[in-house]
Amino acid sequence: MDTGYAHRHLLGIEGLTADEIGYLLDLADGYVDLNRQAEKKRSTLKGRTVINLFFENSTRTRTSFELAAKRLGADAINMSVATSSVKKGETLIDTAQTLNAMHPDILVVRHGDSGAVKLLSEKVHAGVINAGDGNHEHPTQALLDALTIRRRRGRIAGLKVAICGDILHSRVARSNIHLLNAIGAEVRLIAPPTLVPTAIERMGVKVYNRMEEGLEGVDIVMMLRLQLERMHGAFIPSIREYFHFYGLSYQKLAVAAPDALVMHPGPMNRGVEIDSELADDIDRSVILDQVELGVAVRQACLDVLCRNLPA
Amino acid sequence: MDTGYAHRHLLGIEGLTADEIGYLLDLADGYVDLNRQAEKKRSTLKGRTVINLFFENSTRTRTSFELAAKRLGADAINMSVATSSVKKGETLIDTAQTLNAMHPDILVVRHGDSGAVKLLSEKVHAGVINAGDGNHEHPTQALLDALTIRRRRGRIAGLKVAICGDILHSRVARSNIHLLNAIGAEVRLIAPPTLVPTAIERMGVKVYNRMEEGLEGVDIVMMLRLQLERMHGAFIPSIREYFHFYGLSYQKLAVAAPDALVMHPGPMNRGVEIDSELADDIDRSVILDQVELGVAVRQACLDVLCRNLPA
Amino acid sequence: MDTGYAHRHLLGIEGLTADEIGYLLDLADGYVDLNRQAEKKRSTLKGRTVINLFFENSTRTRTSFELAAKRLGADAINMSVATSSVKKGETLIDTAQTLNAMHPDILVVRHGDSGAVKLLSEKVHAGVINAGDGNHEHPTQALLDALTIRRRRGRIAGLKVAICGDILHSRVARSNIHLLNAIGAEVRLIAPPTLVPTAIERMGVKVYNRMEEGLEGVDIVMMLRLQLERMHGAFIPSIREYFHFYGLSYQKLAVAAPDALVMHPGPMNRGVEIDSELADDIDRSVILDQVELGVAVRQACLDVLCRNLPA
Repeated sequence: MDTGYAHRHLLGIEGLTADEIGYLLDLADGYVDLNRQAEKKRSTLKGRTVINLFFENSTRTRTSFELAAKRLGADAINMSVATSSVKKGETLIDTAQTLNAMHPDILVVRHGDSGAVKLLSEKVHAGVINAGDGNHEHPTQALLDALTIRRRRGRIAGLKVAICGDILHSRVARSNIHLLNAIGAEVRLIAPPTLVPTAIERMGVKVYNRMEEGLEGVDIVMMLRLQLERMHGAFIPSIREYFHFYGLSYQKLAVAAPDALVMHPGPMNRGVEIDSELADDIDRSVILDQVELGVAVRQACLDVLCRNLPA
Repeated sequence: MDTGYAHRHLLGIEGLTADEIGYLLDLADGYVDLNRQAEKKRSTLKGRTVINLFFENSTRTRTSFELAAKRLGADAINMSVATSSVKKGETLIDTAQTLNAMHPDILVVRHGDSGAVKLLSEKVHAGVINAGDGNHEHPTQALLDALTIRRRRGRIAGLKVAICGDILHSRVARSNIHLLNAIGAEVRLIAPPTLVPTAIERMGVKVYNRMEEGLEGVDIVMMLRLQLERMHGAFIPSIREYFHFYGLSYQKLAVAAPDALVMHPGPMNRGVEIDSELADDIDRSVILDQVELGVAVRQACLDVLCRNLPA
Repeated sequence: MDTGYAHRHLLGIEGLTADEIGYLLDLADGYVDLNRQAEKKRSTLKGRTVINLFFENSTRTRTSFELAAKRLGADAINMSVATSSVKKGETLIDTAQTLNAMHPDILVVRHGDSGAVKLLSEKVHAGVINAGDGNHEHPTQALLDALTIRRRRGRIAGLKVAICGDILHSRVARSNIHLLNAIGAEVRLIAPPTLVPTAIERMGVKVYNRMEEGLEGVDIVMMLRLQLERMHGAFIPSIREYFHFYGLSYQKLAVAAPDALVMHPGPMNRGVEIDSELADDIDRSVILDQVELGVAVRQACLDVLCRNLPA
């Protein structure tokens, strides 16, 4: 077991300590330079098998994990399983047990249902990384967001961070709230009332319904993707109205700290949740840093979980 | 040429001798431990190219072959070709010849038409493994079934084996009948009259229409997947009725030998052809062993066919 | 920078000199034997990342590039992006910048819009190879065609080459015209009037509407695929009529040079643009040579562009 992170899986940020998070970020930091070199290959995970098991399509997240695995020398296998062809419950477990019998070392799993990845992890010997489950968690996204902040600001603790947009359907928001709370940042949520989970204040966050109030003095603005595909029956605003009230623009950003950073987990809906020009403003936007550091964070997670496999 | 298995291709079990089958099983046996280790990589097939050419989707079989190839150090390439976009006959040959010109060493081919893999094999220099062609053969499935039985029982010859369910549409059944006959097991088929191929008794098997009779005293019960997708115009039973008469339950299994093993090629339709609890009963069910040994069997086949390529 | 080919990208043949083209062909020539050996692996691109980014499906071209990358030791990643789910313009750039942040060394890009690959190349640090963009260019196809001719005839300069069929929609034709002009071959185009781009004569080619005239005395006949999927609203001939007037048959070929070679970029529509028997005639048809040499040409291009990456 790796003493810095002694868990078999990475299913979520909830429950992780500041030390555990810091340890993963330190390890990821060491991989950033590797990816910038011509010779990007290490043999750290030589002979290991990493399976990307995606029940939801996500080309960019899958690619990030695949690059991370291959650059560490692992064999990476992609399995896309259309949820439509999968019967819920038992069949998820059959898939898990079938894959388990092929002796993968790490399973990277994305699934549309909250809790599905944890359920799967209980049926396998492999280490499991949650690459996003329903509205629940997306831990590597929160880690890469944290690494981005830490490298730009030198610290996370004490910063004011606003998470803005569709909080209700966002596993990215949930993972970030847990992480920022654990490290000691001040977390604000900004969303229309219909897109705020009930009783979210119990997580120790302040909720704002107006960008003008919530962004006041913040150091970091995390925009969320408006996930229309997840809004089954919920209030769906018009795009134009949404941008007017909740899209990030230079004008709204003016009340934040003068050096406030703008983040987005991608892919962006330009002109919906974020002004296009602002998204490309390299003085404010660190959106591409997030993508770059994502590979390094995933390398760190794969590395640690392989160390934690029973011999 | 490998003297234990001196063929260029593996297109089916039909025509193989007991010695040839035993040789492949021995070789596969040696790969089982490799897959259980942390460092699962060998360089046996370094510099070789294995192309998985699947005209029918099959995530689990494709993954098993891909793992087998990569763990032996080969470069593995996946090609999925939707049958709908392929004109029959000539175009299959064009695909074969085009791939052949790229100098693959092994082609692993699945196709919806019986005989298509053999046709393709005649047009290429690569060794060809049939990963399932229509209702015809699925030789690596029969080999992994045999390895599973041999490791559990120490032998195959002399055992009573019942193959149960949709025999008519099953390439798995056909390959297993050939293999079990070659090794000297006693083969029984149990199926509703509409799902038994005509004149199948010529293959030296006994046919039963009632589970209660066919399972009497058997050592091995091989259940088949009910392949509704292949039953074009045939009698399609109701699920409930099918399970009542032909689904495997503890009650029906009671007439078999007390230590009878239960097998299934997967993916299972729980509650259709097999009782869900029985499928998970590790004292009776060896379904996950089959998956595990499948990777080893495919490693053995890839290994032998590469040795048999002309220099 | 490689002094033989000192560009960062390979976006088209237009603008390349005869020396640059000859240099790439020489390099490719050296890879042909490698692919014919049992041990086909080199470590030339070890530690490099090649991403195949295909906005249009093309199993064979993607496979050719994937084989080329893996046999040179690079990590190869496939990304298929359905154009339908991609908003034009900005989102292409977002995709480019997102991938760029993951530090690929080479991006191999196919896109349905002419100019899209060049636009993308301006936003990334990786070397970019155009694997086909709209009706514009497909440079590796022209290079592999040239290598095929050169290996069969010993030279390209001075040969009479007829390109026949749907010139209007063909990026293959366009790239070949540029290449053959640069090397000093005589280029003739043969097509129905509706499938000839306006003012194409400015490219220094002769246009014929009748095969009987255009094929007179030619050394090389390049047939094009009839791309019905690209003929939005254009005159669509009946298959039978098309073959009668513009399909290549032994009879039409009789007016060409006695040793004239027949080429086709694949996949062929047998009986539409080419007689099936002629396509398989190994004395005339070099269609499978084209496929074989395609892998070698792509190895050469990947190799050179990696050398040209800034340190």
